Amino acid sequence: MNRIVTIGREFGSGGRELGRRLSEIMGMAYYDKEIVTEIAKRTSMSEEYVQHIIEHRPVMSYPISIGRSFYPMVNPITDQHQTIYQEQHRIIREMAEKSDCIIVGRCGDYILKEQNPFRIFVYAEMESKMARCRERGAEHENLTDRELKQQISRVDKNRAKYYEFYTGHRWGERLNYDLCINTTDRSIKELAPLVAHFLNECLQ
Amino acid sequence: MNRIVTIGREFGSGGRELGRRLSEIMGMAYYDKEIVTEIAKRTSMSEEYVQHIIEHRPVMSYPISIGRSFYPMVNPITDQHQTIYQEQHRIIREMAEKSDCIIVGRCGDYILKEQNPFRIFVYAEMESKMARCRERGAEHENLTDRELKQQISRVDKNRAKYYEFYTGHRWGERLNYDLCINTTDRSIKELAPLVAHFLNECLQ
Repeated sequence: MNRIVTIGREFGSGGRELGRRLSEIMGMAYYDKEIVTEIAKRTSMSEEYVQHIIEHRPVMSYPISIGRSFYPMVNPITDQHQTIYQEQHRIIREMAEKSDCIIVGRCGDYILKEQNPFRIFVYAEMESKMARCRERGAEHENLTDRELKQQISRVDKNRAKYYEFYTGHRWGERLNYDLCINTTDRSIKELAPLVAHFLNECLQ
Repeated sequence: MNRIVTIGREFGSGGRELGRRLSEIMGMAYYDKEIVTEIAKRTSMSEEYVQHIIEHRPVMSYPISIGRSFYPMVNPITDQHQTIYQEQHRIIREMAEKSDCIIVGRCGDYILKEQNPFRIFVYAEMESKMARCRERGAEHENLTDRELKQQISRVDKNRAKYYEFYTGHRWGERLNYDLCINTTDRSIKELAPLVAHFLNECLQ
C-alpha cells in the first residue's frame, strides 16, 4: 500500500510549506492546488470558481451521505457543491492509488481513512500566523492588523465548517490526527527534516 | 538555560513511559513521582495523601492567584491543598534550575513557562488506553471494561480540572503545547527515539 500523509492546517501556520518540503525530502508526490486544477478540468468549471466553493462553507442543508431523497427541489448551487466534492473525493482517491503522496487540506485524512494515512495537523498562535501571512507579501499588504486577524479567523472558520460538514468530525480535534505540530516561532525549513524523520519511521 | 521538557498526558496514553524513555535517551533528569516524595518530605504529609490531593480536583473555590482576602474563614482542607500546590510549584522550579529535565504532569508547562519548556501532550483513543492499562497489570485486573473506561475518564476529568484550576488554561488544548502525539497503536519504545530526535533539534 502507498504511503500517504495528510496535512490539515490553520491559515498562516505554514502547513502548505511543510507539505511541500516534506514531499521534496521524502520523494513523495505533493497535491494541493493540483486538485483544484483537476476538478476544474473534469467539471468544466473555472479554477477560480472551484477554489471559491472549496474555501467557503457549504450551502447544503444535509451532507452528501444522507442521499438525494431529501431534496425534492433541484438547486443548481447545491448541485455544483455536490459535484465538486464528489469529484474531489474521486481525484484524491486516484492520486493516493497512484503513488506515495502528501495531500494538504481538502478532508484528505477522512477521504483516505481506509488507506491508513499519517494525519498531521499544523497550527500556531495568531501573532505567528499574522507574521507568516505578512512575509508571504502581496495579497495581505493592504490589510490592517485587525483586518488580517479577521481574515485568518474567517478562513479557519470556513475550513472547520467544511470539514465538519463532510466528515462529521471536529476540525483540529486532536483525536483525528496522529501528530499536531505548533509552528509558532519555528522555521518550517528547520522543522521539515525532523517531521520527515518521524514519518519515515512511522510509515514503515 | 537548562533544557526543559514537560509532558501532559491522558491516563493510559503512555506519556509517563515516554518521559522515562526520553530521559534515558537524552540523558536528562526525569521527575514524576519524585515530586510527590519531595512534597511529602517538606510538608510532613504522607506520600499517599499528597498523591491523592494531586490526583483529585481541587476543593478550593478560587485559584491561589486570587489571593487570600476572599477567604474570611480558615478551611484546613483548602489550606492543605494550597500548601501542596505551593510546595510542588517551588520543587518543580528548583528541579528545573538544577539541570536539564523532563517533568511529567503537575502543570509543569505552566509553572516553568518562563524557562520556555518544550511542551508535549500525549493522547490516544480510549480502546488503546484501555489496552495499555491492562498491560500494566495488577491494579486494573479486577475491573470490567466498563469500569476501566469509567476510571480512565474520571482520572482525565480530574487532571483537566486540576490543570484548569491552577493555570486558567484548557488541559489538552493544542495551543498550550508544542507537539501533541497520538500513541494509538504505537509502541512507546519505538516512538521515544523519534521524539528525542525532534527535541534535540528544537531545544538547541
